[in-house]
Amino acid sequence: MTELWLIGIGTGSPGHVTLEGQQALREADLILIPRKGPGKDDLAHLRHAIISQAGATANVAEFDMPVRDESLPYQQRVAAWHDEIARRWKVAIERAAPQGPVALLVWGDPGLYDSTLRIAGRLSPAPKIRVLPGVTALQALTAAHAIPFNTVNGAVTVTTGRRLRDFGWPEGAETLVVMLDGECSFSTLGPEGLHIWWGAFLGMPEQLLDHGPLSEAGPRIQRTRAEARLQHGWIMDTYLLRRAP
Amino acid sequence: MTELWLIGIGTGSPGHVTLEGQQALREADLILIPRKGPGKDDLAHLRHAIISQAGATANVAEFDMPVRDESLPYQQRVAAWHDEIARRWKVAIERAAPQGPVALLVWGDPGLYDSTLRIAGRLSPAPKIRVLPGVTALQALTAAHAIPFNTVNGAVTVTTGRRLRDFGWPEGAETLVVMLDGECSFSTLGPEGLHIWWGAFLGMPEQLLDHGPLSEAGPRIQRTRAEARLQHGWIMDTYLLRRAP
Ligand SMILES: C[S@@+](CC[C@H](N)C(=O)[O-])C[C@H]1O[C@@H](n2cnc3c(N)ncnc32)[C@H](O)[C@@H]1O
Ligand SMILES: C[S@@+](CC[C@H](N)C(=O)[O-])C[C@H]1O[C@@H](n2cnc3c(N)ncnc32)[C@H](O)[C@@H]1O
Repeated sequence: MTELWLIGIGTGSPGHVTLEGQQALREADLILIPRKGPGKDDLAHLRHAIISQAGATANVAEFDMPVRDESLPYQQRVAAWHDEIARRWKVAIERAAPQGPVALLVWGDPGLYDSTLRIAGRLSPAPKIRVLPGVTALQALTAAHAIPFNTVNGAVTVTTGRRLRDFGWPEGAETLVVMLDGECSFSTLGPEGLHIWWGAFLGMPEQLLDHGPLSEAGPRIQRTRAEARLQHGWIMDTYLLRRAP
Repeated sequence: MTELWLIGIGTGSPGHVTLEGQQALREADLILIPRKGPGKDDLAHLRHAIISQAGATANVAEFDMPVRDESLPYQQRVAAWHDEIARRWKVAIERAAPQGPVALLVWGDPGLYDSTLRIAGRLSPAPKIRVLPGVTALQALTAAHAIPFNTVNGAVTVTTGRRLRDFGWPEGAETLVVMLDGECSFSTLGPEGLHIWWGAFLGMPEQLLDHGPLSEAGPRIQRTRAEARLQHGWIMDTYLLRRAP
């Protein structure tokens, strides 16, 4: 393998794929697809739909995603998991013996809360890496609500549910966007003066939206999220919080 | 007009356009294009190329972008300018009398440091607004450098050159992404422990990249930027700053 292409595919709609992403799929010689096991089959389906809509003729190799070793402490567990994913890529690639670029379809944008770049950094010899941007969950969120990301000349902090729980509202922030939150961490904030715009399954047929003053919308979103999660078996959601001016 | 579609087109590469953006261009009945006057002709060209690559058959109406009244104070000047743009949209749309959706091509993503949503809010009667996300300059930047936007579980603050000059490095921030900076405002920071990844004309054939410790790369970027600006007559650049861990 001489080149590894990380192609951002957007957040669930085949329409999020970019023209250059589609072109790259057509030019790749091998496409690697993670098999995530039962429950997330929709997502494997989407990847195959994106490949076939591109008219790609590349070899497609699937590999099983390893499970994390929960007995290890957090940092070590993630590192060991990334090592193992890199090893499985390597096995799958050697088996397929591609003559040209190898492509990976990355959810959203490859730069945003995604470990693909870090895993790719473990390959040796190091392949040439090409990153193709994709629509992020943040953009899918603000687009679905038809709201701006920032206020005029305002700053925005992008953060995680874990950080919001651990550190609270960041000093001086006006707009906060939260990803990777399995626990509706907005409920740990004093809701006064905050407005929330929330979205789950953004870009997908199941898309759910809600917004309003955090005091009213917060509890409603917690209920909706719990029900949707039960119904689908999994959920992906993100939200934007803004202080009233 | 019943619907107004704001289509994010990415930051200069026709390949950034999404499949749903292309589809929307084909379904629109009228496409509005701003005429920005001499110097930015490349950008008008790009819009026309994107429309024709989509195979769109819609009416295309151009309107002249008004100039800002520099005699007014900042807030008022921007408000008056948005009012005037909305008025010109209205005139152009009434003249074309579209039977279906009206589309506007918006640079990058319509939610990120862009006034199109705010201008659209001035139209009356209020059309139904549909926003289609597009690749942002931030994504074009991190993709070009093949770097992640965030550190593991880290937060990122997105801000403007003006804010960086006025308020300095935000308390507690680890990663900062700066847009709308006409003055290399990174040069106002103490460079110790900071690393910069910079890009200009991202996604375009003229693309320029540089990165390194801010103390070394900063002055070099200032020179490169000044030269490129002189050569092209204009420049668009953005950068990511990260504290060394
Ligand atoms: C591991 S991160 C990957 C983010 C991705 N690289 C991107 O650019 O959006 C996964 C998180 O992104 C958000 N997310 C991704 N897809 C989403 C979707 N379709 N709807 C809502 N949130 C989504 C959720 O916050 C989820 O916890
Ligand atoms: C008015 S804002 C619009 C941003 C756009 N909506 C987006 O999503 O990227 C313009 C700023 O975006 C950044 N920008 C836009 N296109 C760029 C490009 N091709 N290369 C570098 N920076 C760019 C620059 O910081 C510029 O000052």
